[in-house]
Amino acid sequence: MKLIGLREGRDTVVGVLVGDRVTPLTEVRDFYGDLSKWIARAGEVASGEKPLADVTQAPPVPPSARVLCLGLNYRAHAEEGVYGVPGHPTLFGRWTASLSVGDVPVPVPANEPGLDWEGEIAAVVGAPLANADPSTAEASVLGYAVFNDLTARTAQKLTAQWTLGKNADRSGPMGPLITADEVGRLSDGLRLTTRVNGELVQEGNTRDLIFPVGEVLSLASRTFTLQPGDVLVTGTPSGVGYTRTPPRFLTPGDVVEVTVDRLGTLRTPVVGAEQR
Amino acid sequence: MKLIGLREGRDTVVGVLVGDRVTPLTEVRDFYGDLSKWIARAGEVASGEKPLADVTQAPPVPPSARVLCLGLNYRAHAEEGVYGVPGHPTLFGRWTASLSVGDVPVPVPANEPGLDWEGEIAAVVGAPLANADPSTAEASVLGYAVFNDLTARTAQKLTAQWTLGKNADRSGPMGPLITADEVGRLSDGLRLTTRVNGELVQEGNTRDLIFPVGEVLSLASRTFTLQPGDVLVTGTPSGVGYTRTPPRFLTPGDVVEVTVDRLGTLRTPVVGAEQR
Repeated sequence: MKLIGLREGRDTVVGVLVGDRVTPLTEVRDFYGDLSKWIARAGEVASGEKPLADVTQAPPVPPSARVLCLGLNYRAHAEEGVYGVPGHPTLFGRWTASLSVGDVPVPVPANEPGLDWEGEIAAVVGAPLANADPSTAEASVLGYAVFNDLTARTAQKLTAQWTLGKNADRSGPMGPLITADEVGRLSDGLRLTTRVNGELVQEGNTRDLIFPVGEVLSLASRTFTLQPGDVLVTGTPSGVGYTRTPPRFLTPGDVVEVTVDRLGTLRTPVVGAEQR
Repeated sequence: MKLIGLREGRDTVVGVLVGDRVTPLTEVRDFYGDLSKWIARAGEVASGEKPLADVTQAPPVPPSARVLCLGLNYRAHAEEGVYGVPGHPTLFGRWTASLSVGDVPVPVPANEPGLDWEGEIAAVVGAPLANADPSTAEASVLGYAVFNDLTARTAQKLTAQWTLGKNADRSGPMGPLITADEVGRLSDGLRLTTRVNGELVQEGNTRDLIFPVGEVLSLASRTFTLQPGDVLVTGTPSGVGYTRTPPRFLTPGDVVEVTVDRLGTLRTPVVGAEQR
């Protein structure tokens, strides 16, 4: 099952995507407030009510969702940067206010040489989790989506805390949410590639994740109670731009595409600061 | 003018507090969507409709608000820790899901020796800010509130990123929002104290802020567009618990109070992990 968000005024409505048509279900907070009901309802949708082209998409998560992002979660990426392979999962936060969806142009902030790509996979939590063990946490995942953790490196590296550089306007595009029953386990191995203007720049496989989703959600759930709709973005493989010689960044006119087995392709055009 | 949030079902409504009575205005996203109208309306409220004791309070910010927190923003606190005085403002994030209000019990996560106190002042943004200069940014502040940035130090220090330890359940209590016209500028000097079970543990003055509010909002606005209702928590003075010999933490039964000139006192009881 493929779920997307539809922007309706200031609200987000969750809808089911069938082919290139969509059937709206309910407001996003309602949806996560009674997931079993709405997932059952979604399962009864045989065909979409209206063309996808007629709606404005939004990330299918509530406005209060915590977006936890993992740094350094593929061994080769951890080794290519300045940080090394960590002993614990490195978690930083995005706000839902910096999320967007596929095909939405993302501006380069005026004080950056460009944006860096980070092709990733987002897991959306489907049950409250407090002091959950790793297998319970993994089993609670509602589904997965392609994600691009587009990064403003100058802001990220201004201090030791990455938050600023990880929340540029519209810098977290997220694809449709594919329910876990259609994806399987990340440890089975999904291939992830990132292409810039068609050129392959990242290639990874989720078999190589250092910290699996269940383990990270379990860890986080010991400090705070995860809620349905919270998001864990699982980290990027090697091949980002800033570690290259010379460094390479996305600048206006570039198009970046992240493709993941079973999840599809997320396409993002990059534009100038004047289009913020 | 004193503004609070009222929990109504899954929504937050902003209300005006007059003495110990409150008049509800409108849903929080409506409020920040047309601030000038609602602030004018609030100014016409002469007396409260219902007793404060009859409502459930909530932080007066929208669910999508970005809560930017400043680390190491008082010289003496920066020097007491392991990080030193920074050259740029150190920004990390809280999610609104970890905010709460005064008198709400805050649980110690089961894997922490206790929580650490950090008495602070929150500034709430009152206008969209993109590439704003510091004086425009400071002038945009709608108001200020007492804040306690209660910290799970074990989780905070697990990796270089502080996010996990800064988002324990209900760990960000926030007092009523006092509009800027009644507060003046932080650089004029507001005294801040933190007391644990009545004992003074922190004493600071906003004259000693290393990075003023306008400068930090200006910096952030170069990377992302701040929206009305976003929050900047301005950092804590020296005297936190973890740097003491031996370290001292808040454990179940303790009561912590943060008091700031013109903003009032924010009281927080600490409870056990079983009350998560």
